[in-house]
Amino acid sequence: MRKRLFCAIGICALVLSLATAGLAKNALVFQTDFGLGDGAVSAMKGVAFGVDRDMAIFDLTHYIPPYSIWDGAYRLHQTMEFWPEGTVFVSVVDPGVGTERRSVVAKTKDGRFIVTPDNGTLTFVEEMVGLESVRIIDDKRHRLAGSEESYTFFGRDLYAYTGAKLASGTITFEEVGPVYEGKVISIPYQRAKVEDGAVIGNIPVLDIRYGNVWSNIGKLLFDQLSPEIGQIFEVTVKEGDKVVYSGDIPYVNTFGDVPEGSPLIYFNSLMNLSLALNMDSFSEQNGIMSGGDWSISVKPKK
Amino acid sequence: MRKRLFCAIGICALVLSLATAGLAKNALVFQTDFGLGDGAVSAMKGVAFGVDRDMAIFDLTHYIPPYSIWDGAYRLHQTMEFWPEGTVFVSVVDPGVGTERRSVVAKTKDGRFIVTPDNGTLTFVEEMVGLESVRIIDDKRHRLAGSEESYTFFGRDLYAYTGAKLASGTITFEEVGPVYEGKVISIPYQRAKVEDGAVIGNIPVLDIRYGNVWSNIGKLLFDQLSPEIGQIFEVTVKEGDKVVYSGDIPYVNTFGDVPEGSPLIYFNSLMNLSLALNMDSFSEQNGIMSGGDWSISVKPKK
Amino acid sequence: MRKRLFCAIGICALVLSLATAGLAKNALVFQTDFGLGDGAVSAMKGVAFGVDRDMAIFDLTHYIPPYSIWDGAYRLHQTMEFWPEGTVFVSVVDPGVGTERRSVVAKTKDGRFIVTPDNGTLTFVEEMVGLESVRIIDDKRHRLAGSEESYTFFGRDLYAYTGAKLASGTITFEEVGPVYEGKVISIPYQRAKVEDGAVIGNIPVLDIRYGNVWSNIGKLLFDQLSPEIGQIFEVTVKEGDKVVYSGDIPYVNTFGDVPEGSPLIYFNSLMNLSLALNMDSFSEQNGIMSGGDWSISVKPKK
Repeated sequence: MRKRLFCAIGICALVLSLATAGLAKNALVFQTDFGLGDGAVSAMKGVAFGVDRDMAIFDLTHYIPPYSIWDGAYRLHQTMEFWPEGTVFVSVVDPGVGTERRSVVAKTKDGRFIVTPDNGTLTFVEEMVGLESVRIIDDKRHRLAGSEESYTFFGRDLYAYTGAKLASGTITFEEVGPVYEGKVISIPYQRAKVEDGAVIGNIPVLDIRYGNVWSNIGKLLFDQLSPEIGQIFEVTVKEGDKVVYSGDIPYVNTFGDVPEGSPLIYFNSLMNLSLALNMDSFSEQNGIMSGGDWSISVKPKK
Repeated sequence: MRKRLFCAIGICALVLSLATAGLAKNALVFQTDFGLGDGAVSAMKGVAFGVDRDMAIFDLTHYIPPYSIWDGAYRLHQTMEFWPEGTVFVSVVDPGVGTERRSVVAKTKDGRFIVTPDNGTLTFVEEMVGLESVRIIDDKRHRLAGSEESYTFFGRDLYAYTGAKLASGTITFEEVGPVYEGKVISIPYQRAKVEDGAVIGNIPVLDIRYGNVWSNIGKLLFDQLSPEIGQIFEVTVKEGDKVVYSGDIPYVNTFGDVPEGSPLIYFNSLMNLSLALNMDSFSEQNGIMSGGDWSISVKPKK
Repeated sequence: MRKRLFCAIGICALVLSLATAGLAKNALVFQTDFGLGDGAVSAMKGVAFGVDRDMAIFDLTHYIPPYSIWDGAYRLHQTMEFWPEGTVFVSVVDPGVGTERRSVVAKTKDGRFIVTPDNGTLTFVEEMVGLESVRIIDDKRHRLAGSEESYTFFGRDLYAYTGAKLASGTITFEEVGPVYEGKVISIPYQRAKVEDGAVIGNIPVLDIRYGNVWSNIGKLLFDQLSPEIGQIFEVTVKEGDKVVYSGDIPYVNTFGDVPEGSPLIYFNSLMNLSLALNMDSFSEQNGIMSGGDWSISVKPKK
């Protein structure tokens, strides 16, 4: 609408159209394990706003469980694709803050940027999307003036500041610092696969608000079992070797397809196989948690 | 201030003034029961930002109790009027997601828009403000590209996307889809009234942070009892037929008008009759909750 | 980047560059004890957005413990400096709402603005940064139209509205209202000092998310003990006269410098002396809280 109106007015408007087209604003999106109870997140945003007062600043979440790089890595991967190309994510889950770990900016193969300590936060993005290039932040050039004495708040003094300069176009990706030639740090975890007529995988995360259990089993993999809507499957959930849940569950499109309180297999918004109770919490009712130790097996009931 | 400076500079500035005046930016305001612990809200905002990188994106709340359409309906009505005309609200409290309920955009009589499943979320807005028109979202035209396989995240793939297009002026209200000719779904509840020298009503919601009890009894109705500041009233609160609280309370302007720990009747920021303890929680001290079952009666003490 | 492109295009662009330079947008930053569970914060933002649809609106925190002016004062001081000059803070921790306390706008010596009830919220900012001038909000001119009957939501009807007008340049600081000639209200608390070879101070706040204990002892004061990295100190924490913690702790740069579960003395992001356990909660493990009653003493171990 903006462009249309300007275009009716001639040269001045043409200039503006060109300007607008060439200068698409990039979002700066923060993720931390800080919570929202104090001023830490606000200070990061203040630093970013100071770089560019037209900056579009947003949140992914600030409720990553404290120190859980795994959760940060998962949430980042889960959410990134819904933000447009050029978006800069600043992810600060940094139990090793102040020790010798690299501070990097990764450019993904689909054109997003992630500013983060290299501590495993890039695990899922690297595997699922791929990284085009990783650069080490030049701490000499991109540290907030006056913060040299502070050893503990990299999130604010280095990551927010660098991310804001990148998102605003104040610096290019190349100006972040030297290319990192090695491999970024990756957290080992169980991959999903089909074995003996069953799909198996792990439980990377719970849908905490509703208590649904999410797996890393994608729809294409599940489709190798030729499932039909309404078909019953035998589901087993284990923590290590211990069976925590075992039961028969129908595969349906959505919650309302089963009675209240009944279990269902469905595909979540990431198109991964998930377990739920309609209007109740599957994870709470069955004592299920998430993490590398947790596995799930799903096979057709005979 | 912006306009003033431009106006001093002639034709180019005139163009800009006109542009600015004609193109007032509309806010996009999200309400959900998702909480802020994962990436769901962020994904919705990413989709909206992808539609228009100048979009003004805000939150109403994301802490509607899970599945509570009633609370969503109440918070929406409570907050809308403080946002200017043209604001687009996206409200996703959707226990029936994926089943056959309509997805609509309602235009209120005072010129706001609400994108929501038609499941009762419009109850209070329809009654208190009125709806000028309701349109069914044309799912074929307004679904996020690539999301056709996902049955479960309408909030992101349909509502956020449609709301963003409407707020940015990418589509008009008419382009949302066909007019819905029927009546939107409404949740039944007890209306406030004067009866036998008392005002009675229900308790739609608590002021959860402070524990104040809010009623649906407006000031105009209460004024029919000709109350005076300082006057004592007999207050009874019931859950169904069971009396939960009964006591004498003064009607005052504000909390500081009674000693710490003492009860007061006051009018909240929505100008509805409310009960509080100065510096303490009335609802907790007296075991009071909110909902359709809860009623309140207030009459002058003789 | 924006400016560079415009500059290539001549007079029209020059105008825009000047305009942009002269009209740096000011952030409006909200702090309250409202939480995010209802629509109160959103209503404040709606009022602000209604004043200027290009307003840059942010949060400090809305999780100040209810009624805790002390915490509000501390968080405000802690965070302000990271927002650029011209930023307008609206802080609403207001247990005395509706009673006779002044509503003011303070301009700090470093060029930020704070809209707040004068109830102690300015304590730390006044002492640490200094106030250039304080003006009383002219309630007649700056109250949201239609809100005259509401006695209880100053945050929305007066503070958000006045803050938005100030941040957007709709009014100048001088137009807020008359200068307040007196001294703003200040909360008494124990100052940090060196005494008998030890530094002593109080515990204004905990780093709640990680359980670290923050003191008001700055690095310059601590340096009077000529501390060395790795040196062991005797630390005593008291509530009133009662010793709650007593132990020997090394002074290090950062968490990773001690084994997991071990205590450390470090300087937090505000450069104040702090206590922590690496990967655990010092405050929880030792039953330590914050407030005027809590004191800390640190001296070199012989």
